[in-house]
Amino acid sequence: MKIVIVGAVAGGASAAARARRLDEDAEIILVERGEAPSFANCGLPYYVGGVIESRDKLLVTPKQRLIDRYRLDVRTYSEAIQIDRQAKTVLIRDLKSDNEYSESYDKLILSPGASPLRPPISGVDLPQVYTLRDLGDADRLSQAGSQAEQAVVIGAGFIGLEMTENLVRRGIETTVVELADQVLPPWDAEMVTSVTEHLRSKGVKLELADAAESIVPVENRLLIQLRSGKKLPADLVVLSVGVRPENKLAIEAGLEVGQRGGIRVNEQMQTSDPDIYAVGDAVEVHHFVDGTPVQIPLGGPANRQGRIAADSIFGRSAHYRGTQGTAVVGVFDMTASMTGLSEKSLRAAGMAFEKIYVHPSHHAGYFPGAEQMSLKLLFVPKDGKILGAQAVGRAGVDKRIDVLAVAIQAGMTVYDLEEMELAYAPQYGSAKDPVNMAGFVAVGVLKGDQPIIHAEHLMEASNHFLVDVRSPEEYANGHIPNAVNIPMEELRGRLSEIPYDSRVVTYCQVGQRGYLACRVLVQKGFQVANLSGGYTSYQQYRAIATTP
Amino acid sequence: MKIVIVGAVAGGASAAARARRLDEDAEIILVERGEAPSFANCGLPYYVGGVIESRDKLLVTPKQRLIDRYRLDVRTYSEAIQIDRQAKTVLIRDLKSDNEYSESYDKLILSPGASPLRPPISGVDLPQVYTLRDLGDADRLSQAGSQAEQAVVIGAGFIGLEMTENLVRRGIETTVVELADQVLPPWDAEMVTSVTEHLRSKGVKLELADAAESIVPVENRLLIQLRSGKKLPADLVVLSVGVRPENKLAIEAGLEVGQRGGIRVNEQMQTSDPDIYAVGDAVEVHHFVDGTPVQIPLGGPANRQGRIAADSIFGRSAHYRGTQGTAVVGVFDMTASMTGLSEKSLRAAGMAFEKIYVHPSHHAGYFPGAEQMSLKLLFVPKDGKILGAQAVGRAGVDKRIDVLAVAIQAGMTVYDLEEMELAYAPQYGSAKDPVNMAGFVAVGVLKGDQPIIHAEHLMEASNHFLVDVRSPEEYANGHIPNAVNIPMEELRGRLSEIPYDSRVVTYCQVGQRGYLACRVLVQKGFQVANLSGGYTSYQQYRAIATTP
Repeated sequence: MKIVIVGAVAGGASAAARARRLDEDAEIILVERGEAPSFANCGLPYYVGGVIESRDKLLVTPKQRLIDRYRLDVRTYSEAIQIDRQAKTVLIRDLKSDNEYSESYDKLILSPGASPLRPPISGVDLPQVYTLRDLGDADRLSQAGSQAEQAVVIGAGFIGLEMTENLVRRGIETTVVELADQVLPPWDAEMVTSVTEHLRSKGVKLELADAAESIVPVENRLLIQLRSGKKLPADLVVLSVGVRPENKLAIEAGLEVGQRGGIRVNEQMQTSDPDIYAVGDAVEVHHFVDGTPVQIPLGGPANRQGRIAADSIFGRSAHYRGTQGTAVVGVFDMTASMTGLSEKSLRAAGMAFEKIYVHPSHHAGYFPGAEQMSLKLLFVPKDGKILGAQAVGRAGVDKRIDVLAVAIQAGMTVYDLEEMELAYAPQYGSAKDPVNMAGFVAVGVLKGDQPIIHAEHLMEASNHFLVDVRSPEEYANGHIPNAVNIPMEELRGRLSEIPYDSRVVTYCQVGQRGYLACRVLVQKGFQVANLSGGYTSYQQYRAIATTP
Repeated sequence: MKIVIVGAVAGGASAAARARRLDEDAEIILVERGEAPSFANCGLPYYVGGVIESRDKLLVTPKQRLIDRYRLDVRTYSEAIQIDRQAKTVLIRDLKSDNEYSESYDKLILSPGASPLRPPISGVDLPQVYTLRDLGDADRLSQAGSQAEQAVVIGAGFIGLEMTENLVRRGIETTVVELADQVLPPWDAEMVTSVTEHLRSKGVKLELADAAESIVPVENRLLIQLRSGKKLPADLVVLSVGVRPENKLAIEAGLEVGQRGGIRVNEQMQTSDPDIYAVGDAVEVHHFVDGTPVQIPLGGPANRQGRIAADSIFGRSAHYRGTQGTAVVGVFDMTASMTGLSEKSLRAAGMAFEKIYVHPSHHAGYFPGAEQMSLKLLFVPKDGKILGAQAVGRAGVDKRIDVLAVAIQAGMTVYDLEEMELAYAPQYGSAKDPVNMAGFVAVGVLKGDQPIIHAEHLMEASNHFLVDVRSPEEYANGHIPNAVNIPMEELRGRLSEIPYDSRVVTYCQVGQRGYLACRVLVQKGFQVANLSGGYTSYQQYRAIATTP
């Protein structure tokens, strides 16, 4: 068996190592365009920021180790430029000598990755405009950073915000320009308003709902002109507006690609040519939750796909279940994490869903250092099946999303979340974990115990009688316009102040007292709903409305 | 509906709050022997240690709030002393006035908790011998700690080690005496050898496999005499040798109790009297994994049971699924966590199981601050169903156990662990998360790709040809006796040094290179097994053997 693998990072490297373990005698050739196989691309922003001090750390499995341990034929600075499917050969160019030669294969695995998009604006190819994909990019950015005073990051996704944090760490004044009216576009807007605030508190300037129209060199510097008319001076620009699958080789070979350009594969990671497999950021996958074809570049799935391709080649039963989009990003002292479908993707797909918000502490509130997180849960109204979750906060966020990611994998419902038995000691969690809390609230909604209303609907409609059941001090600190303050403790004695024929909305700070108030009023015959996530969610929604 | 609830912490408080939300008009009486309802019993050790500075913090839901918000009739310093099931009344003693009165009920919920065991040794009732159950205990211990120089903690379970950490924090020289030959007896011994080492590094003295035989007052101090003949001087003793269910009231009322004294309940938390429910540490539950009746005192389950009892009373379908024993404890800078069945409990039950060990970093190794953890996975050999997991380390431990706890809840297998899509960015995890790694290894074992041997078997048998595939430097730093060093990188060229007719065992530091070596040798026709968990697991086993 002779296997040629194009691309030696994540998926390619995993496929190679797995193939070797399965067949000691196979001939395995790893063709890598760059200088190093298996480098830590997710670490690049932190290398630029100096958090990862040594460049060697990024070489997760150095070339020589792949050769010595796995007996792989690793060819760096080598680019696959053409596939002859008839002859089952790949044309490879040695980038150092410019020699080209043909290599035959029994099975070919494509793991070319995805390349950063370069929007078609003038100046985008200036030398001070960077993207971040490989070690060379990181070196150049790191170098440029040592002389820069001002930077503009275009795109506020994962890499954009990681780069922003690391540029600020280097003492560079940084402005982020984002086309969407929010940072971290995969998340729902209201969930990341606290991230926006946090970025600003760290001195980052944000230009949301705006776009760069041109980049003009002015002496040794740049001037970035925005659609809004604003002009931003900068010493360097980082482009992070997304990636597109590297599909040129596949398309030229006549392999099928999807609408967004991802190489089409079956569950065995096999392309439309049964002797050619494809894995990683270049392929189109099916979303685990709704089965739609998607393009989700993530390290975990790439590695898994590499293993599956190797398994398939050696006749083992293995199939890829789909990508569920579990992701996490650190933004200074905050963490945003998500799994499954977002509300915006559910809306786009026209799927029925319900949602709830909770804002619990990441561990017992009585133990020092408890940090509040916001957790959003999306589920099927009919049976409570979990569709997606998002969490944002300072600690314990990734843990809850991992728990919910497994729940989604297992096809669990919100009823299961109520019953989950998670590890509790005061410095780790709560007897009622945030995940349990989300389950309680969601089940309350599904069972009709807790009719809810969402902040966006509250803001659209004005015909509600709003009862703020917090303390007078909390109310005085800020409340929803026109709300009447009746503290929960006084509610039962002041029912006569609430009009019996109105649609009543109760709310508190995070939703818990509002829920209790709602239960009292429901049982007394009022037509009432609790504001999901309380004033905290209201503020997050209001922050979207006033963002740009 | 009139509900009387005996015991107002965790389960009792949850039942009361839930009952109120379900029925605004119910009469709900909370009878609490102590000074405060709903206090943070899991926080008591940290209050003694000064980590939780304010006593008020421990009053999670103060009495007045329960009264004002939930309209509960809260009676503290009140002890239920007799149940008349015929008349459906409880006799209550007001501990302040010593008055007794009878209270009728429609439904009674017992949530009396469990009381610390006092072993029958002489001196156990001396005033300097403490247990830790309620606020008063914590106050007394906190007070005693301010004058103490030396302490002895009897029992190295959760509370014993939490107390130890907090006594040391107060500057008190502390010795722990434990009957078992390990700390944290719910865990398997090899998993907590690093905790033992860590305790010693913090100056804690450990007397394992030993027991206190008497406590003798000597002037103002104590002398604790151990079975081994050792004598330990101390200013105070903390007894933490376990708890027993508070079942006196239930037994005297003729309610069924289990073999270990726990009040018997059905899935609705109903005792043998349909009008009496019981929840929390006082009840016998079924283990989620194997269905056996067990006594597992945990805060999360207590709260859940309280909700379920209230739901059942109001005719709602709710059932308790059983307790799976998910637990976590902090010991200075380390964390030990577990879920499901341990190896020792599987052995005791005579159940078939396989196990594997991995020792991965808690996040990407290339990102600063990666901490190694040890993770043990127990599963059914036939189908890979997960039976239990244990993890010990410095960071990220509780997260992995939570993930595995959900996997157990969902009835998942080790094959599912391979596919789990967890949140990855370098400061949070790895593209191949520790949970995925455990899945890879377990599946390799089940599929026969990776025959393994465990350290305890290796130590028992001497007829293996041991190949240490680490580097010469690692080998020189310590290796298994009689092992031959053939680094993985040289293995293929040195096959002739390995006897073809021997049973060969490969090992490396954590099991990964050993696995690759094993794959090479299997394919070359050798009879070979990889040492699960490598030299790290070997050292952990060796540490048990040499502990006392």
